[in-house]
Amino acid sequence: MKEIKGLSIQTCYSPALYPLFHEENSIVVAVDILRATSAICAAFENGVEKMIPVASITEAQKYKDQGYLVAAERNAVKLEGFDFGNSPQHYLNSDIQGKTIVISTTNGTQAIEAAKGKAEIIVGSFLNISEVASWLLEQRKNVIILCAGWKNKFNMEDSIFAGALSLMLLKDEEFYTLCDSTIAAGYLYNIAKDDMYGFLGKSSHRHRLKNLELEDDIRFCLQKDIYTCLPIYRNGSLINLKEAEVEDSTNKV
Amino acid sequence: MKEIKGLSIQTCYSPALYPLFHEENSIVVAVDILRATSAICAAFENGVEKMIPVASITEAQKYKDQGYLVAAERNAVKLEGFDFGNSPQHYLNSDIQGKTIVISTTNGTQAIEAAKGKAEIIVGSFLNISEVASWLLEQRKNVIILCAGWKNKFNMEDSIFAGALSLMLLKDEEFYTLCDSTIAAGYLYNIAKDDMYGFLGKSSHRHRLKNLELEDDIRFCLQKDIYTCLPIYRNGSLINLKEAEVEDSTNKV
Repeated sequence: MKEIKGLSIQTCYSPALYPLFHEENSIVVAVDILRATSAICAAFENGVEKMIPVASITEAQKYKDQGYLVAAERNAVKLEGFDFGNSPQHYLNSDIQGKTIVISTTNGTQAIEAAKGKAEIIVGSFLNISEVASWLLEQRKNVIILCAGWKNKFNMEDSIFAGALSLMLLKDEEFYTLCDSTIAAGYLYNIAKDDMYGFLGKSSHRHRLKNLELEDDIRFCLQKDIYTCLPIYRNGSLINLKEAEVEDSTNKV
Repeated sequence: MKEIKGLSIQTCYSPALYPLFHEENSIVVAVDILRATSAICAAFENGVEKMIPVASITEAQKYKDQGYLVAAERNAVKLEGFDFGNSPQHYLNSDIQGKTIVISTTNGTQAIEAAKGKAEIIVGSFLNISEVASWLLEQRKNVIILCAGWKNKFNMEDSIFAGALSLMLLKDEEFYTLCDSTIAAGYLYNIAKDDMYGFLGKSSHRHRLKNLELEDDIRFCLQKDIYTCLPIYRNGSLINLKEAEVEDSTNKV
């Protein structure tokens, strides 16, 4: 095989397969459009200082017992006794400024779990897609788009996000992809892009079967670039890199 | 979730994820378009009586030592000391009538390995796609299209086959799919269908990097319905169900 120079883009459709995609010194974009990574972006945009992703309900409960605010969702439902589910709308009007929130979800936190300690991880959603793309273009590193999927299966919404993001990066001629799943995601995004809500309605029967309260969330999560936050995983927590950078530059003054 | 009646179609993009898709009493269609399942179809169409798929080279070597004809391929190359690789063209002019061939390949035999002992397994390729579809339509069982992929990663050619086959089955109104990967495969097939060779050339950079001798094989493997064989896994071996049925009816006379 020819050696190719440049910055590679890969897309992994299932957290269970992440070890096959892992590369040293790459950046992982964790994606769970409906709804965990959209909710994480909403939380940071609304002033949350830190989010601690945990994989299990048991861990989430331990934090709850210690007095933390905790978001816990399984199978699209907020678990009883916790403070939030994974609807981004839970974070829009809440008094969460400066708070730390622990979060455990069916798929999204599992994606972070798969890559943590192995690569730099940022959180992507349509809500902050341009911010994610700009930052990745600055880093000049290989990119792995890690779709949370649905219980380790491919899902349509995370894949069309992967397509959208990869097409943005591929406009920079140093980026390339040899990854069929990235190329397929680009095709799917191109079919979907003019009406993502309609496309998902037609294309993913799963959504039709869910309760109708989710319809508002789906519309919300498909909005592009309403946010400028950039959640990044550092030392066991997600923080908003944009806030961290502002603080850094303030400290320097 | 509403209960849905009918016959479901799922598509699994990676043998490693097969356990997530497994359903009792379903039929698995094992697919490795480039080239193992195309080669298996070519072998049966040219008179092979039985093929024994084995996962490891060690097993393949044991059969070789016992005097069997053995096909062994890794990373698209025929292994030294064996009789065949995984090019379908190896089986077109060989004197293989009535023979048993042991086969071990990078991806295709791994797909069979993932499902064996768990579900009825048939072998699909574009070469026999209508035969596969007709037989599945007769069985009235749930279908899992199991793409061999490339070392457990999604690949484009197996996915467009999954799209083509699922669209054929979905014309029967009892079949349905709630599986995003099946729906995505259908979209990809619809983009590819008028020029699959051109589509794969544009869409899967991997192929461009392979040696050019494979180009003929790719063109060969993308031909639809040149064969009527139906390889099925029974008691540790693949046999041609079409031949078995002919023998059955002859015996009854």
